Amino acid sequence: MAEPLFARVALIGIGLIGSSLAHVIRREGLAGTVSISSRSAATLARAEELGLGNEYHADPKDAVAGADLVIVSVPVGSSGEVARAIAPALKPGAILTDVGSTKASVIAQMMPEVPDGVHFIPGHPIAGTERSGPDAGFAELFENRWCILTPPPGADPEAVARLSEFWRRCGSNIDTMDPEHHDMVLAIVSHLPHIIAYNIVGTADDLESVTKSEVIKYSASGFRDFTRLAASDPTMWRDVCLHNRDAILEMLARFSEDLASLQRAVRWGDGDKLFDLFTRTRAIRRSIIEAGQEIDAPDFGRQVAAHPEKV
Amino acid sequence: MAEPLFARVALIGIGLIGSSLAHVIRREGLAGTVSISSRSAATLARAEELGLGNEYHADPKDAVAGADLVIVSVPVGSSGEVARAIAPALKPGAILTDVGSTKASVIAQMMPEVPDGVHFIPGHPIAGTERSGPDAGFAELFENRWCILTPPPGADPEAVARLSEFWRRCGSNIDTMDPEHHDMVLAIVSHLPHIIAYNIVGTADDLESVTKSEVIKYSASGFRDFTRLAASDPTMWRDVCLHNRDAILEMLARFSEDLASLQRAVRWGDGDKLFDLFTRTRAIRRSIIEAGQEIDAPDFGRQVAAHPEKV
Repeated sequence: MAEPLFARVALIGIGLIGSSLAHVIRREGLAGTVSISSRSAATLARAEELGLGNEYHADPKDAVAGADLVIVSVPVGSSGEVARAIAPALKPGAILTDVGSTKASVIAQMMPEVPDGVHFIPGHPIAGTERSGPDAGFAELFENRWCILTPPPGADPEAVARLSEFWRRCGSNIDTMDPEHHDMVLAIVSHLPHIIAYNIVGTADDLESVTKSEVIKYSASGFRDFTRLAASDPTMWRDVCLHNRDAILEMLARFSEDLASLQRAVRWGDGDKLFDLFTRTRAIRRSIIEAGQEIDAPDFGRQVAAHPEKV
Repeated sequence: MAEPLFARVALIGIGLIGSSLAHVIRREGLAGTVSISSRSAATLARAEELGLGNEYHADPKDAVAGADLVIVSVPVGSSGEVARAIAPALKPGAILTDVGSTKASVIAQMMPEVPDGVHFIPGHPIAGTERSGPDAGFAELFENRWCILTPPPGADPEAVARLSEFWRRCGSNIDTMDPEHHDMVLAIVSHLPHIIAYNIVGTADDLESVTKSEVIKYSASGFRDFTRLAASDPTMWRDVCLHNRDAILEMLARFSEDLASLQRAVRWGDGDKLFDLFTRTRAIRRSIIEAGQEIDAPDFGRQVAAHPEKV
């Protein structure tokens, strides 16, 4: 058997992303030893029951000791605390990365804690489902998805290359960009859609004139498409909102401006304006299907099992 | 072979819904003869090429002559025009129905044209995909979906029963309600979601700071979920917006009010408020899955082919 890519990998946080990493690391033989830590004793016990790694540590310091690659997969609001906890135990030459959905805030929290000689290379795999916890993971989560790395200026090219190779072996394609651009891109493709989804589900839940059972019965007519996102992990998404505030507020402002204009077209019966917008948006859907970002089973793509010809 | 439910069925309009009806009528043997009409010569020719019916008529009057059941499946803005065109040829005792996404406006347009002795029973199958045209139809579209009927006061109970039986044989469950309530329910479960989806895709398309290719590459992180709705038929949705204006404006106002409050929570870092909303919305998703309105393949439910255990 080939040498594993890393002798020792530490997974700090073992939710959807952490446990999916555990599965793919084993399947691909990417680590000699996987040591796992979770803040929650119940989660850690469940990870052990599931046999996700080789070692389980309540104290993250113990999990990272001697590790060549440390992957922090916790809600972004906890990044600084985790970095402080593990910093003293990090091995010189180790690669430290994360999977957080915001990058500037994670860097601001973690960077000051990182000891000299440790390669801190923030990352974000663009993959997920609405499920959370150690039972939610599966090895195919990252397949044909993008992983964005935001190496700081002066990052060691060899460390970046090794981390990139790790993600490639997990099935991902690699992009690098600066953290501010990452945060702007994610605000529109991910954060705003989640906020909108949470919001519309909340609006429906509050109606007096339409019962909850009606909303559920007739959800196939459109509403349902929003509920998957609105079932995502509340802690993770609270933290995203708090830690990518400026970019999210910017996108919310644009969205609301556009919606006000659309609402005006509805009120005044401006059919041409409605038709123009509704036509323009079709093209984007086609591009997503062409880019293979739609019909992928592992990430709960909308698999058209019965009618593949209709995609 | 059993007697068909109707000797002669006329399908006026042969898009996604009309062509799906053609398929299921044949599969279930619900009609002796199916006659088809479309305003577009190209669409009618395509329907004939696909062999969707037994007769094809450019003039809808010719299609409805002698029909026992007439199903109008056109954008709701064209309902009045179609009713005027077919009224003189409708057979006494025939059932006339439609499939429009708004009911009060369709009734206002069609009812005055309906001759005495014809049973006008408006309907709305809550089923659809983002595809349109005669090639888009498939027999399973209505399976395990709800069909809402809005019979006018004094409607013939036998006619309502026969139309209900027709939809049941298409695979649907039947609900009846008054048109105003229908329009309010659909405004929240269908019309608002489509408008929001069109709007966010438009907002993303307009950004200067994020390229279109970035939006597409990273769409799996949330944005993608909106694009299916935003690829729906522009003519149909323009008409829905114009013909269910009041209920849509009411839902848009509530949505925007809620979004402003959420935006304020983001701006002021009110994590508890965000967490509360994000927790509350999870329950609705679970109910939709329990009601079987989520994982149904025929209507492009998000089939979890590779991981059924993760639903």
